[in-house]
Amino acid sequence: MTRIAIDAMGGDYAPHEIIAGSVWAAYEYNVPIELVGKHDDIIHELEKIKQNGFISDCGKKGTRKRIHIDISKLDIKITHADEIIEMGEHPGQAIRKKKKSSIVIGVKSVVDGSSDALVAAGSTGAAMAASLFGMGRISGIIRPAIAATIPSLKKPIVVIDGGANSECTPEMLYQFAIMGCLYSKQLLGIKNPRVGVLNIGSEETKGNTLAQETYKLLEKNKDKFNFIGNVEGNKLLLDTCDVAVSDGFVGNVTLKVTEGVATLLFRLIKEQFKSSVFGSMVGLMAQMFFKKIYPRINYEEYGGSLLLGVKGITVISHGRSKAYAIKNAVRVAKEAVETGLNKKITEMLGE
Amino acid sequence: MTRIAIDAMGGDYAPHEIIAGSVWAAYEYNVPIELVGKHDDIIHELEKIKQNGFISDCGKKGTRKRIHIDISKLDIKITHADEIIEMGEHPGQAIRKKKKSSIVIGVKSVVDGSSDALVAAGSTGAAMAASLFGMGRISGIIRPAIAATIPSLKKPIVVIDGGANSECTPEMLYQFAIMGCLYSKQLLGIKNPRVGVLNIGSEETKGNTLAQETYKLLEKNKDKFNFIGNVEGNKLLLDTCDVAVSDGFVGNVTLKVTEGVATLLFRLIKEQFKSSVFGSMVGLMAQMFFKKIYPRINYEEYGGSLLLGVKGITVISHGRSKAYAIKNAVRVAKEAVETGLNKKITEMLGE
Repeated sequence: MTRIAIDAMGGDYAPHEIIAGSVWAAYEYNVPIELVGKHDDIIHELEKIKQNGFISDCGKKGTRKRIHIDISKLDIKITHADEIIEMGEHPGQAIRKKKKSSIVIGVKSVVDGSSDALVAAGSTGAAMAASLFGMGRISGIIRPAIAATIPSLKKPIVVIDGGANSECTPEMLYQFAIMGCLYSKQLLGIKNPRVGVLNIGSEETKGNTLAQETYKLLEKNKDKFNFIGNVEGNKLLLDTCDVAVSDGFVGNVTLKVTEGVATLLFRLIKEQFKSSVFGSMVGLMAQMFFKKIYPRINYEEYGGSLLLGVKGITVISHGRSKAYAIKNAVRVAKEAVETGLNKKITEMLGE
Repeated sequence: MTRIAIDAMGGDYAPHEIIAGSVWAAYEYNVPIELVGKHDDIIHELEKIKQNGFISDCGKKGTRKRIHIDISKLDIKITHADEIIEMGEHPGQAIRKKKKSSIVIGVKSVVDGSSDALVAAGSTGAAMAASLFGMGRISGIIRPAIAATIPSLKKPIVVIDGGANSECTPEMLYQFAIMGCLYSKQLLGIKNPRVGVLNIGSEETKGNTLAQETYKLLEKNKDKFNFIGNVEGNKLLLDTCDVAVSDGFVGNVTLKVTEGVATLLFRLIKEQFKSSVFGSMVGLMAQMFFKKIYPRINYEEYGGSLLLGVKGITVISHGRSKAYAIKNAVRVAKEAVETGLNKKITEMLGE
C-alpha cells in the first residue's frame, strides 16, 4: 500500500499544522504515513492531537472547526531526523552539510522504499536539491521541473516550470511539455490537454529566442500532444490551455503575480465594503458568494507542486501551508504514485 | 503650446473612438491636437461628432453618456496619411514599406516639430519601430523601453520594460531603472520612487543570470536612486515598490497576467452573483462598491505606456482603447512633454 513520507519540520507552521494535515490525510484517504523529524516533537504533537484534536479552517475563514481523529487506528511511522534546514540557508550547501535533516532523511525514505513519495513544505530549494541528489534524475530527463497547478476559469491548469530552472533550453521545455501533459492527464483527469508556450504574443515569431525555438520544437513534435501554439498572459487563465510551458523564471513570476493580483483585488473589495455601514451589510451578504469562489482559487486545494523528472515523487507545498493544504498535498502524492506518473514519464522520455 | 499628434487610424475602434478621445482631450486639457490618417475619414468623423457628439462609458458600464463638445473652438490640425499598418503585419517591414502610413507620418510630425508627442493605439510593434527609426534613440541609451503603469494597492507602479525588448543585458536594465524612476517622479508624482528588480526570490543570489547581474549593477549605483533589492511577483502590487525593472518578456507576461487574473476574478464573482435571485440582488448592491474599485484598476486611467529612450514622446495605447483611454493617453503625452521628461533622461543617461 502506498505510504507517504512527510517532512514534519518544514514550513512556517511546522510541526503542528504539518502533522495535523498528515494525520488528517491518513484518515481521510486511508493512506499510511511516515512522519520525518524530531522524534520527541512528533510524539508530543501526536499526543496533543490525540487529546484535543486539531483546528482546521479548510483554507478559509468561517470554516474553522475542531477535528478529532482516532490516531490509534492509523498507520503512522515515525522516522527520527535530528536537523532542520532553515529557509535562509543555501539549498545545495545545506543538504550536503545537514545529512541528518528532515528533508534529506525524508528523501532517503523514498529512495530506500520505506515510503513511496514525499511531501515537503519547507525550503523549496532544499526540497529540490535533496530530491535531485537523493533520488536522481530519470535517465533521459535533462532537468527536473516544478509542475504547479493554478485555478483558471474552468479547470485547473499546469504551469511548468514553476521555478526549478531559471535558465532553460528549448529541449528542456519540450520535456516539460511532455511531463506537464502527463500530469494534466493522470492527476487532473484532462483527456487531451492543450499545451501552449507562455509567450508575449500569439504569432510564432513573437517572444525571446527561447520561446521562439520552443515553439518550433513543439510544433515539430505535435503528434505527441495537443500543441496549440503560444498563450499570452491575459488569456492564460481564461480556458485557453491546460498546460503552459515556460522557463522557471517566467513560470515563477507568473504564479506569484497571479497570487498577488488576487490578494490585491480582494483587499480592495474588502476596503470598499468596510467604508460604510451599508457597505458592511452588503459585504456580509456578498461574503457567502465569495466563499464559493474561494475554494476555486485557493492554492491549498492542490496542496503543492510536483517535482517532475526525478526518480521518485516529491510534492513541494507552499511554506505557508496549514493542515488543509498538507492533507491535499498527501492526496496529490498518493495519486501521483498510484497513477504511475513516473512510469509514464519514463516511457515517453526515458533512455 | 504643446501639440499632440494622434494616429487616428490605429486601434480596434479606430477611427471613431480615437478621434472622439482626441477631441475630448483637446477640450478637457485645452491642448492642440493633430489627427493623422485618411483625411476624408477624419473629416467625416469630426462632422459626426459635431452633429451628434459621441458616447463615452468612461471605461466602465453604467457611466455611459453622450458628450457634446463644440469642436469649432478647438485647435485641431489634420494631416493626411494614405496607408494603415494592420495588426498582423511585421512591424519592421511594414514601416519600411508603408511610408505613408498614419503611424509613420505621425512620427514624422513629431520629428518635424509639427507636434510635440504622439499617441498610437495600433500595432505596438509598428509604433515602436516607427518611433525608433523615425525619432532615433537618445544618444547614450542602449535600447528604448516601454514604461507601463499598473494599479497597485496604493499608488500606480511602473513596470519597465513592458515589452519592447525580449532579450536584455544588465546595462539595459540599469538604464530602464533610471528612466522608470524619472517617469515615476515626473508623471506619477512619486518623490523618491522605490526601485526593485522583478525576481523570483528576495535574496541577491536568486533568479536567472540577468536578474542577479542587474541586482549587482543597481546595488553599485544605488546613490542614483532608491534601490530596494528584489521584488517578487506576489508582492509587486502590494505597495512594496514604485518601479519594477525586468526584461520586456517578463515585464509583458507580468502585465498581461495581471490583466488576466483581474478578468478571471470578476468573471467568477459575476457568475456567483448570477447563480440565484438573491445573488442578483446582492450583486446589484455590491456593484456600487465595485464601481469605486474599477477606476483604480482600470488600465484606461493611464491611457497608455510611454516608449522611453527615443528622441521624442510616444504613448502606446492598448489596441482596445476607446475614447476615455485615448483622452487619458493624450494627457500623459502632454505631461511627458511639459515636465521635460526626455531632457531629464538625457541629463542622466545621455552622452
